[in-house]
Amino acid sequence: MKNKIQVQPVMDALEIIGGKWKFPILYSLCGGKKRFKDLLEDIGKITPKMLSSELKSLECNGLVSRKAIATVPVTVEYELTEYGETLEPLLRHIQAWGINHRKKIIDSIK
Amino acid sequence: MKNKIQVQPVMDALEIIGGKWKFPILYSLCGGKKRFKDLLEDIGKITPKMLSSELKSLECNGLVSRKAIATVPVTVEYELTEYGETLEPLLRHIQAWGINHRKKIIDSIK
Repeated sequence: MKNKIQVQPVMDALEIIGGKWKFPILYSLCGGKKRFKDLLEDIGKITPKMLSSELKSLECNGLVSRKAIATVPVTVEYELTEYGETLEPLLRHIQAWGINHRKKIIDSIK
Repeated sequence: MKNKIQVQPVMDALEIIGGKWKFPILYSLCGGKKRFKDLLEDIGKITPKMLSSELKSLECNGLVSRKAIATVPVTVEYELTEYGETLEPLLRHIQAWGINHRKKIIDSIK
């Protein structure tokens, strides 16, 4: 049983931050406050509808905060909360692994 | 453009290790060699068919090795490759985050 329990926290974490888009959104916010259109541009392949629903989920789980700024028209900024920032080391690990993986693939083609 | 490029490696990594089951499978293998039934038991909610297809994908990407042992009947063992072991720090981060998240939720209910 001991080992089985150790996998469950991984699945618990993925319930909150798993899926195709949450890691890229969170990683983009590691770079500081972002507006909706900045996030769309950073991530590229995500639809506005999907980005909006993923941001709501991240907000609901206390990882991202949303602030409306009284410009005309209103602008909305998203930011990692303090709790969201606890993910930064993990996100940087994934990014570094991704860079290394791409290099490994390119080297293997040469 | 600079920031857009930084998100791409996260998406590249998730192409290889993303989805609901690969992180739990990889994490279970951090504990050493495992047989198919051990992995099924560790992860619990995964079907044999899904586990088999995810293991094939991880094998194909050089993260997991598969060894058939000449017992009767034959037994098959799965193990992280050296390249798969480069994911260990990341997997431990996810697990630790999951433990902390569960605690945070329980504390908030008390």
